[in-house]
Amino acid sequence: MADYDLVVRGGEVATGFGTARCDIGIRGGRIAALAESIADGSPVLEAGGLLVLPGGIDSHCHIEEPARGGYVGSGAGAAVTVNEESFASASTSAFAGGTTSVVCFVPQWKGEGILPRLADYEQRAARGMLDYSFHQIITDPTEEVLEREVPQIVAKGIRSLKVFLTYEPLHLSDEEYIKVLVTARRNGCLVTVHCENYAAIKWRTEALIAAGLTAPKYHAWSRPSIVEREATHRAIALAELVDQPIQVFHVSCEEAAEEIARAQARGLKVWGETCPQYLTLTADDMDRPGFDGAAFMCSPSPRTTAEHAKVWEMIRRGTLDIVTSDHCGFSMAGEQGKAASGRDAPFRDIPNGIPGLAARLPILFSEGVSKGRISLDHFVRLTATNPARLMGLAPRKGMIAVGADADLALWDPRKKVTLTNALMQHAIDYTPYEGLEVTGWPVATVRRGAVVMRDGVVQAEPGTGQFLPRGPYDMVRPRGVLANGFDAASAPG
Amino acid sequence: MADYDLVVRGGEVATGFGTARCDIGIRGGRIAALAESIADGSPVLEAGGLLVLPGGIDSHCHIEEPARGGYVGSGAGAAVTVNEESFASASTSAFAGGTTSVVCFVPQWKGEGILPRLADYEQRAARGMLDYSFHQIITDPTEEVLEREVPQIVAKGIRSLKVFLTYEPLHLSDEEYIKVLVTARRNGCLVTVHCENYAAIKWRTEALIAAGLTAPKYHAWSRPSIVEREATHRAIALAELVDQPIQVFHVSCEEAAEEIARAQARGLKVWGETCPQYLTLTADDMDRPGFDGAAFMCSPSPRTTAEHAKVWEMIRRGTLDIVTSDHCGFSMAGEQGKAASGRDAPFRDIPNGIPGLAARLPILFSEGVSKGRISLDHFVRLTATNPARLMGLAPRKGMIAVGADADLALWDPRKKVTLTNALMQHAIDYTPYEGLEVTGWPVATVRRGAVVMRDGVVQAEPGTGQFLPRGPYDMVRPRGVLANGFDAASAPG
Amino acid sequence: MADYDLVVRGGEVATGFGTARCDIGIRGGRIAALAESIADGSPVLEAGGLLVLPGGIDSHCHIEEPARGGYVGSGAGAAVTVNEESFASASTSAFAGGTTSVVCFVPQWKGEGILPRLADYEQRAARGMLDYSFHQIITDPTEEVLEREVPQIVAKGIRSLKVFLTYEPLHLSDEEYIKVLVTARRNGCLVTVHCENYAAIKWRTEALIAAGLTAPKYHAWSRPSIVEREATHRAIALAELVDQPIQVFHVSCEEAAEEIARAQARGLKVWGETCPQYLTLTADDMDRPGFDGAAFMCSPSPRTTAEHAKVWEMIRRGTLDIVTSDHCGFSMAGEQGKAASGRDAPFRDIPNGIPGLAARLPILFSEGVSKGRISLDHFVRLTATNPARLMGLAPRKGMIAVGADADLALWDPRKKVTLTNALMQHAIDYTPYEGLEVTGWPVATVRRGAVVMRDGVVQAEPGTGQFLPRGPYDMVRPRGVLANGFDAASAPG
Amino acid sequence: MADYDLVVRGGEVATGFGTARCDIGIRGGRIAALAESIADGSPVLEAGGLLVLPGGIDSHCHIEEPARGGYVGSGAGAAVTVNEESFASASTSAFAGGTTSVVCFVPQWKGEGILPRLADYEQRAARGMLDYSFHQIITDPTEEVLEREVPQIVAKGIRSLKVFLTYEPLHLSDEEYIKVLVTARRNGCLVTVHCENYAAIKWRTEALIAAGLTAPKYHAWSRPSIVEREATHRAIALAELVDQPIQVFHVSCEEAAEEIARAQARGLKVWGETCPQYLTLTADDMDRPGFDGAAFMCSPSPRTTAEHAKVWEMIRRGTLDIVTSDHCGFSMAGEQGKAASGRDAPFRDIPNGIPGLAARLPILFSEGVSKGRISLDHFVRLTATNPARLMGLAPRKGMIAVGADADLALWDPRKKVTLTNALMQHAIDYTPYEGLEVTGWPVATVRRGAVVMRDGVVQAEPGTGQFLPRGPYDMVRPRGVLANGFDAASAPG
Repeated sequence: MADYDLVVRGGEVATGFGTARCDIGIRGGRIAALAESIADGSPVLEAGGLLVLPGGIDSHCHIEEPARGGYVGSGAGAAVTVNEESFASASTSAFAGGTTSVVCFVPQWKGEGILPRLADYEQRAARGMLDYSFHQIITDPTEEVLEREVPQIVAKGIRSLKVFLTYEPLHLSDEEYIKVLVTARRNGCLVTVHCENYAAIKWRTEALIAAGLTAPKYHAWSRPSIVEREATHRAIALAELVDQPIQVFHVSCEEAAEEIARAQARGLKVWGETCPQYLTLTADDMDRPGFDGAAFMCSPSPRTTAEHAKVWEMIRRGTLDIVTSDHCGFSMAGEQGKAASGRDAPFRDIPNGIPGLAARLPILFSEGVSKGRISLDHFVRLTATNPARLMGLAPRKGMIAVGADADLALWDPRKKVTLTNALMQHAIDYTPYEGLEVTGWPVATVRRGAVVMRDGVVQAEPGTGQFLPRGPYDMVRPRGVLANGFDAASAPG
Repeated sequence: MADYDLVVRGGEVATGFGTARCDIGIRGGRIAALAESIADGSPVLEAGGLLVLPGGIDSHCHIEEPARGGYVGSGAGAAVTVNEESFASASTSAFAGGTTSVVCFVPQWKGEGILPRLADYEQRAARGMLDYSFHQIITDPTEEVLEREVPQIVAKGIRSLKVFLTYEPLHLSDEEYIKVLVTARRNGCLVTVHCENYAAIKWRTEALIAAGLTAPKYHAWSRPSIVEREATHRAIALAELVDQPIQVFHVSCEEAAEEIARAQARGLKVWGETCPQYLTLTADDMDRPGFDGAAFMCSPSPRTTAEHAKVWEMIRRGTLDIVTSDHCGFSMAGEQGKAASGRDAPFRDIPNGIPGLAARLPILFSEGVSKGRISLDHFVRLTATNPARLMGLAPRKGMIAVGADADLALWDPRKKVTLTNALMQHAIDYTPYEGLEVTGWPVATVRRGAVVMRDGVVQAEPGTGQFLPRGPYDMVRPRGVLANGFDAASAPG
Repeated sequence: MADYDLVVRGGEVATGFGTARCDIGIRGGRIAALAESIADGSPVLEAGGLLVLPGGIDSHCHIEEPARGGYVGSGAGAAVTVNEESFASASTSAFAGGTTSVVCFVPQWKGEGILPRLADYEQRAARGMLDYSFHQIITDPTEEVLEREVPQIVAKGIRSLKVFLTYEPLHLSDEEYIKVLVTARRNGCLVTVHCENYAAIKWRTEALIAAGLTAPKYHAWSRPSIVEREATHRAIALAELVDQPIQVFHVSCEEAAEEIARAQARGLKVWGETCPQYLTLTADDMDRPGFDGAAFMCSPSPRTTAEHAKVWEMIRRGTLDIVTSDHCGFSMAGEQGKAASGRDAPFRDIPNGIPGLAARLPILFSEGVSKGRISLDHFVRLTATNPARLMGLAPRKGMIAVGADADLALWDPRKKVTLTNALMQHAIDYTPYEGLEVTGWPVATVRRGAVVMRDGVVQAEPGTGQFLPRGPYDMVRPRGVLANGFDAASAPG
Repeated sequence: MADYDLVVRGGEVATGFGTARCDIGIRGGRIAALAESIADGSPVLEAGGLLVLPGGIDSHCHIEEPARGGYVGSGAGAAVTVNEESFASASTSAFAGGTTSVVCFVPQWKGEGILPRLADYEQRAARGMLDYSFHQIITDPTEEVLEREVPQIVAKGIRSLKVFLTYEPLHLSDEEYIKVLVTARRNGCLVTVHCENYAAIKWRTEALIAAGLTAPKYHAWSRPSIVEREATHRAIALAELVDQPIQVFHVSCEEAAEEIARAQARGLKVWGETCPQYLTLTADDMDRPGFDGAAFMCSPSPRTTAEHAKVWEMIRRGTLDIVTSDHCGFSMAGEQGKAASGRDAPFRDIPNGIPGLAARLPILFSEGVSKGRISLDHFVRLTATNPARLMGLAPRKGMIAVGADADLALWDPRKKVTLTNALMQHAIDYTPYEGLEVTGWPVATVRRGAVVMRDGVVQAEPGTGQFLPRGPYDMVRPRGVLANGFDAASAPG
């Protein structure tokens, strides 16, 4: 009888600090042993010459997310559309890029509670191959929702509430945001926040459109860094008042990150996330001929190459400690595509978001590790360990350690690849990173011991992804033996 | 035949991120396997209910260090005295406290090269049981030393040069310090720096003594925080000019740490160390009746309880990322003791330094982890992983990973102990921490697979300690697969 | 024929930089000459041994201000009440305290434009003896108000718009605030802002009252520093977005002032004001027995003595460059008094505000100049020159210079006085500064050449106060010969 | 009989805050009256359409300064050379540029006391037409000098000690600098400091020359900003330790200024000076063909245009509050000229310094006021009021006020002039500002009531300049009636 279900042999294994050359013995989907050499007799996946990294965790993905009335800010119609990236296609794309778990978003529709959308969404998510957890979006924080429904979802292991401080039908007022913070505090949830000032963007947008400045590039003009900084400061200040931990999503610029750094220096439980688009894309990309610029439109807006350097610095300083994709794909063509609603309309009416699930790890590895901006350790923490810790998925996920799920990405650090949409294996008809050359590429992906990708070929059975409940007590806590209080500064570590 | 020389069974193993419940298989002094369960048949050290931590690395210890003319600043006589803590007694003390490796100091006597002292010191160190490496002190940076001798010690694997910016016979001028920086840069060494302003302390000391203010407590008056901040800024600025990495030793106060933080924010390769004395002792301790205050005298001077809180904050922020003991013991009584030269003399003539080798880990665990100031992860990084990385001892030392040396401290996190000098098992006749209550205590120590301490009883053969050469290429570099450039911010991680 | 209508003889005259011993010749209400010695023949006011300062300008006073539905946040009734401090009583009080000009507030009632209230208020103000200008409060920024009425009041010389970011019936949303900023920018007005977060205070207040914590002291609990800091950051950020100068009113704490300092360091046209209450009163004053604490209730709330020191530091740094009274008196007794609506009600229902018109200069002189915290120059700038410059009243007001209005306060810098309500000579039945001892006191006040106070006796004809129109072009500009651009940093100078 | 010796009629007079249109009556060399209109009968200087500013005070000038062994760092010969700018030629140049007073430097030669050089220098200075005071340079702080001679010069009214932290024969060690600080403190003197790190410059210079990099442009390479920052931090830290006020001379860059700003924020009595060369010249100017670059060589080195913007910001923030010329002219040709000792030698041997006495005010007015970077007020403070206050010359000098010396510059703010060496009217054979176009120019200069320049023609009798003793008690104190403690923050105002 084989000792192990699978042995990953001979790789340089990223066990949390540097790498160790060792074999990994997997049993029952979990890592049972790390050893200098595991005896023959078990099925083997050869990793010689490769890095073995924890499977990526992408804690910010919009997948198969239903919306009532469309995705653009001004939409308020009644018809329901569903984001074209299904859990099946997203799983394929994730595995292709070395990612094995995601946290995605359950919507709430105004006038409804949160439970109806959750029930629907649970069914959708169960059809994928990725392991998953949910952020619960709150757009209508009624007493019913806050007092009765939130405790129910927390009991299921959904322990983060997502709020928007901008977007027409989604944004919360300060009063509503405070209510969510108070509820999260009572229920031991994290609050994750999209920080941009609603009123300021609205004013700018209307002024631009009134002036006939409607092309995609004006998207960037409508929401400069300052509106992100303002909302970041406010989101933190109110969380400080309520004493509730928050994560600031998709930080695009130094000035917003600086607010997070100041809060951390005050000892607050505030974390910051960024995304590859804020390290590689610029506002100028939206100024491409015709409607092409729409392909790069997301919020916050891509900034400048100078800003990229500053965001890297904020990563290096540990202010920004998680890098996700904010995958939110809309094809350019097609019924739900960007062109359908936006080609002949002002920038405000173009669906907002870009795909990035498969591209995240290769871009960050190449721009970060291969170009010497960050160490390999740091890469692993940004893309797997830290998301696992902050989302309450550790120690099951996010590291290569005995007892953890055997989620692995086998990585060839020298392989050079030119990104194409085909390589992304997602449902969207383009990638904003088309043509980008990267050094370093995932050549195999293992999810709970199963080899789900090999040389770009994904093989996994729909419905094999698992829901990841998060425990009631160790949320946003370091996993120390004594679990005595939270240590914000050590989290990025 | 047993698979392993030793199996550590059933502990909560700190593998670098949180803990994993697993067994550790040790073979040939190294960790050969980490596994859910290792089959019977090998000798077993039971660790049920205990934490298993990497053996502590104390990268700042004065052990059996010869001095010509005594240890006080004004001394310049010809007789050689040797620090009373021998490598044998230091090894016992270290093992009692969970520490398995040290970096200690080779002196240079003015008018000599560095090789004569090194030859002598190598013989001394070889008689201990601890694994060890050396910092080479430079007090007389002649061309001979810098051009011909430094390359020779680097070839042996001694890759750090220690300089003093204060102390009468030891301090370097700016010109000399620059020469050392340039030499270190050429040879790929780290420079470690004692940062206090010589001239300012001299002025203050003379003024105090002239005014008849000679009691031990005036030691603190003679060297306020500002002299530490000034020298820290200068040490960094000149290192910045030369582009040479440095570590600032024993940071005692916020204002010096702040200079390090500013340098790190500029992207400089500057690291900061602190010690338990700057987290627990105060200047008031030196104001005890009679000569008792001398027991707490070290440099920089202990500050205030308010400053302790600020130093903790600098630890949490990652500005200070290594905690050592700066073990430098002088008994109160005895021929070489503090009283002998200092009882009837001004504070300037009292030997300067306190013992702390055994106390370091228990104090930091108790004040840090047990009191909720830092996570267990952070403790491990501060006391083992970071010293290993910065000193170029990783991946062999500083973590529990396959392939690493099997240096372990089995820790009972709930055990309450009142510190006494007897528990320190050192050669010094007192501990400045007498009476301090700690929660958490090392109950066994393993050095390269050998159980060298069990329930406080140390058993190890003199001469079994090994010299730890540091490799020529990965000095002060993160251990990434590509090793491409240095990432200061990720180092503390 | 006398050369001058009045000669002020022999004083130490604060001409803007230090003092000069000289005579002042006044003709037609203006300073016609400053000279070593003016020949006899004109009426003389002897100033030997006294300082001669510019008459104080209090650019933040609520006088005879009508309110619909009362002054407390929750009020929304229809009955109109008028602040009990009339322009006549306020003039007496101001002259008693060395102040000769004020800027007070024209209300706007929701549902109305601004012109009706202005017409009424102009009549009220014309009955006083003080020179005066107005801030126009905007509570309902309709298109009518912004597009058509604001230009009309600007044409009259009212060039500042006041907005509230808190208070139940008064506060503006971000959208409304942005509209006011845009309007101000088009019309060359300053915007002055009460910065506290409405939603946060509402949440705290309701929570406190729900918990039965209703005493006056909970006023401070309901609005901690953080709500002031948040609103200050937001007010500045949106002003930055619109590129419109603002003044932040009544800064009570370091963290709000720090936001102003950061903005100034970015080169923004942002100014900060503070008041004597934030240098002398504390939250503990509201914890006096019975209802007595209500006497100290104002917003922002008084803080702590530690905070006083920090506010002084922000004054010294120039971050806060104007000190006003925020005079807003409510008697304790009487129909409109604090007790009438608040004695048996929660703190929320107590009229909010304290009197301070007469006390401002003596307190600031005593606590500032006499106690050595600021120089005499600095005092003059804080209380006269800077308000004159920022409000567009210079060079007519705010300095002793040829051509300026002859507004003077003759000050005995050595006189010791214990403050009593009688000395305040206002309409309010108490002073929160009762019993405070001050060193330095105004012994005569001259308004446009007329001696209106002498040894505490005020003599002036109702109706002699003049409206001070501010010119259309030099608003918030330094008065340089070229007037070429604004220099924020030099303004405090 | 005329009332006044001279009446300046009809100008816009800068009386300290903005300008007032008034006449100035002068009697006995002092301002006797400022009045709307002064009756006919006295001699008149028409100022219609002109600004009337206080005569400039240049508190940092090297004039007719003797040196033993030449001016370059390495010089140590015995022959005495005297700076070619005599007091007579300097007076002419100063008057041509609107400056009426200077503070210049008395040398000390190693091995001597300070009195011999002072006696000689007093005779030289007495031959000029400018009013003058001295900084006493200390290069050899013997006990004799510090204990016995310094009190004697202080008694004469010389109340500032100048020290160098760099330059071969001049620089003080930290020990010596501390001694000077202690002496200054005992005697109530200011210490003014040239802040660059001697050892660092020496190392860089030797390395550059060893590498054959000897052209003038390498002067900038030999002393980057960091050596200035380091010395600035150290100079401040040691002054902080001793509690002695200092002024940091000729700040050339943001990072040095930032250290001053940090010190000021800590409440220290530290001031910062800059010069026109750090606002207009760059390191690239030293890279002109042949030997031409030497014309721009001064220390600290000119930086970049980007740095100019930052220095302006530091002026605006008030961190740098005095602008002087650091006039230190060496002709290009001639026996003592730059070429004589430097043309065929490495940059180290070129006399270091540039002329700027006449150019200072026109450049600062044009680049500052005319280009809208600072207000007119600010210009007056930077060039006259602040130097007068800090040097203890106020209230006699530095402002237009009754009782002050009648030192005036009549300025045509609209006049456009292209700078040429002829316009400088100095003894040096070039100006580094040749060809610079300025807007604003002095058309007449009045020194103690005498018109000494009119339309560029200087008329003044040699020997009419007066020594300006500074009083023993009000040194570095604001001139408040109570003189109670020092207020660093208000000083720049």
